[in-house]
Amino acid sequence: MLKLHSIDKNNKIIYIQSGSNHIEGYRLGVCILIKGEVIMITTITFNPSIDRMYRVNSINIGEVQRVISTNATAGGKGLNVTKVCKILGENPLAMGFIGGFNGAFIKDELRKLGIKNKFTEIKQETRNCLNIIEDNKVSTEFLEKGPIIGNSDLEKFENDIKEVIKDTKILIASGSYCQNMPLDYYEKIGHICRENNIKFILDTSGEPLKIALKSKPYLIKPNTDEIKQILRTNVESRDEVISAGKKLLEMGAQNVCISLGKEGMIYLNEYGVYEAKVPKIEAVNTVGSGDSTIAGFSVGILRGYEVEDLLKFSNACGISNALNIETGFVTLEEVEKYQGLVKVTKLS
Amino acid sequence: MLKLHSIDKNNKIIYIQSGSNHIEGYRLGVCILIKGEVIMITTITFNPSIDRMYRVNSINIGEVQRVISTNATAGGKGLNVTKVCKILGENPLAMGFIGGFNGAFIKDELRKLGIKNKFTEIKQETRNCLNIIEDNKVSTEFLEKGPIIGNSDLEKFENDIKEVIKDTKILIASGSYCQNMPLDYYEKIGHICRENNIKFILDTSGEPLKIALKSKPYLIKPNTDEIKQILRTNVESRDEVISAGKKLLEMGAQNVCISLGKEGMIYLNEYGVYEAKVPKIEAVNTVGSGDSTIAGFSVGILRGYEVEDLLKFSNACGISNALNIETGFVTLEEVEKYQGLVKVTKLS
Repeated sequence: MLKLHSIDKNNKIIYIQSGSNHIEGYRLGVCILIKGEVIMITTITFNPSIDRMYRVNSINIGEVQRVISTNATAGGKGLNVTKVCKILGENPLAMGFIGGFNGAFIKDELRKLGIKNKFTEIKQETRNCLNIIEDNKVSTEFLEKGPIIGNSDLEKFENDIKEVIKDTKILIASGSYCQNMPLDYYEKIGHICRENNIKFILDTSGEPLKIALKSKPYLIKPNTDEIKQILRTNVESRDEVISAGKKLLEMGAQNVCISLGKEGMIYLNEYGVYEAKVPKIEAVNTVGSGDSTIAGFSVGILRGYEVEDLLKFSNACGISNALNIETGFVTLEEVEKYQGLVKVTKLS
Repeated sequence: MLKLHSIDKNNKIIYIQSGSNHIEGYRLGVCILIKGEVIMITTITFNPSIDRMYRVNSINIGEVQRVISTNATAGGKGLNVTKVCKILGENPLAMGFIGGFNGAFIKDELRKLGIKNKFTEIKQETRNCLNIIEDNKVSTEFLEKGPIIGNSDLEKFENDIKEVIKDTKILIASGSYCQNMPLDYYEKIGHICRENNIKFILDTSGEPLKIALKSKPYLIKPNTDEIKQILRTNVESRDEVISAGKKLLEMGAQNVCISLGKEGMIYLNEYGVYEAKVPKIEAVNTVGSGDSTIAGFSVGILRGYEVEDLLKFSNACGISNALNIETGFVTLEEVEKYQGLVKVTKLS
C-alpha cells in the first residue's frame, strides 16, 4: 500500500511504499504525476535472444550470398511482454539468464528503451535467433538452443529473484527453458510466487507447463496445439476448447486463456466461461501478438480491471502488435481503438 | 635494426630497436630466445566479422527450425592471416574497423589467442557472416554487408596506422572494403607503405586491386577469376596465366602470386617465373587456405627466405590450413612436413 509521506512547496509528493521504497511525483492541479521507481511487474525470460532479421532476394542453398539488410533486436517472449508493459505505462523489470557479448547487446537495447533489468549473469553467450526473409515474403527461422545452465546459475537466479520481488505484484514467465534446466523449475517459481502473494502468469508449453499447474498459477495462456500436447485430446470445436479449459482449471490454473488466433479467445475461471471476439484486421506481423496479449493481461490485472475490460484490453494489445511490423510493440492509440471493437460474452 | 643493449648475469638480453622500443630475450647456449614486443607484421581487415557456423539437419525454407550446434569465431580474411602469422611464431598486430558488441567479441577472441590489435573504433556494429551446414555437408553462406564508414572514421584509421607502423616491416591488407569506402583506399595505404619503406602485401580483388597497383604493392595474390575480372582476358592455360601475371607486373605489382588451387601456383617477379606444384591432399576445409598462404609469404619474406623456400613455406601453410577443420589455422608439424613436398621450378 502507498502511504503519503510529504508534499513540499513545489507540489512534489513522496509516497512511501512497503518499507524503504518510495515513489516521487508532482501534483498538477487535481492530477498526480507519478515518477515511480517501484517495480510491480517482473518478467522472466530464461532464454532471451538477439533476434536477427536478414532480408535476402532468395535463399540459394549451397551458395554464398550477400544479405541485403540486417536488423537486430532484444528478443525472447518474456522480453516482448516487458517491452509492451513499458509502452502501456508500467515500469517492468526483466529477469532471466544473460551472458557474454550478446547479453551485453540485449542489456543495452533494454537500456535504450528505459527498461530495468536484473538479469542473472552466466558465463555462456546468450543465443541468437535468425529470421531470413526472402523477396517473396517467405520467412525461414533458425533458433539457437542457447546456454547450458548449471546448478550454481539456478542458485544465483533464485537469490536474485528473492531480492527483487518484494514489490512485485505480478510475475510473468514466458518461453522455454535453457538447456539442462529441471523440468519442474516453473513450478518452483510458482511456489515462490504463492509464498510472496504474487500473481504468477505462465506462458509456456509442454511438460514444464503441465508440471507447473501444481503450483496453481494465476493465469496460463495455451493455444490449442499446446493443449493437445498436454491433455492429448481433440480441441477443435468450441465445446472441446471449453472442456479442455475446464480440465486445466481442475489441474490447478486459476485462470485459463485459450487463444484461438483470428477467432479471438476463450477465458475461463471459477466464475465462468467468457468468449472474446476480435474484429478482422490486416495483420502485418503476428509474431509477438500472444506476448502482447499477456502484457495486456498483466497491466489490466495490476490495474484491477474487471474480466470484460481485461479481455478487451489484452486482446486489443495483441491486435495492435499484429498491426505493426515490430515484434513486441503496440501503440496506445490502437489499443484504445480496438478495445472498443472486441466483443466479450459470458457463455456460462 | 636491432642494437644490443645489455646482457645481464641471468643471460637476459635486451635489444634496442628504432628509438624507444626494445626486445627482451634470453641466451640459451648459442641460441637466443626472443620474447619480443616489437610488431613487424601488421594486418588490415577493414570489414572483420564474427563467423558463425550453424549445423542443421537440413534447411527447410519457410519453416522454424532448431540449430543443432553453433560456433562463433573471429573472422575475415585479414584476421585469418593474423592468426596464422601468430601460429608461425610472429607477433602480428591486427588493424581495421571494429564496432559494437560484435567488435568486443572479436577483440576478446584475439586476446584469448594472444594477438595484439589496434582497431579503429566505429559506432556501428561489426558484421556477422553465417555458414549453415546441413547433414549432407552442403554449406550455405550469408554475408552481411558490414558498417558504413564515414570520413571521420577514415581519418581516425589513418592516424592509427601512422602511429603503429614505425616498426612494421610488412603490412598485409586482405579482403574487401566496408560500405562507402573510397575505391582507391588500398592505393592510399600502398603509398603510406612506400613512404615508410614497408612491404605491402595486398589480397583483394576487382577495382580496388586494379587501382592499388599504381602504388606498386610488394605482392598481390589474385586467383584466375579475379584476374579475369581485372584484365578481361582468358586465363585458362598456363601460358595465359603467365602472360596475365606479366601484365600485372607491368601494371605495378612487384611480385605476383597466382593461385591455381589444387594445381599449386605461378609466382612472377622481375627475376623470373616460378611454378610451385603441391602434393595431393585430402582437404577438410579449404576456406582460409589462401589467407594462410599469405601468412606464409609474410613470415617467409620477413625472415628473408629465398624465392624457392618462400614458395615451399607459403604453399605448405595453405595445405596445412586445408587439412584442418578450423579456418585460419595451421600446425607447425604439417607446415614442416609439406614444405618438403612442394616442388618449385623456375620456368623462365
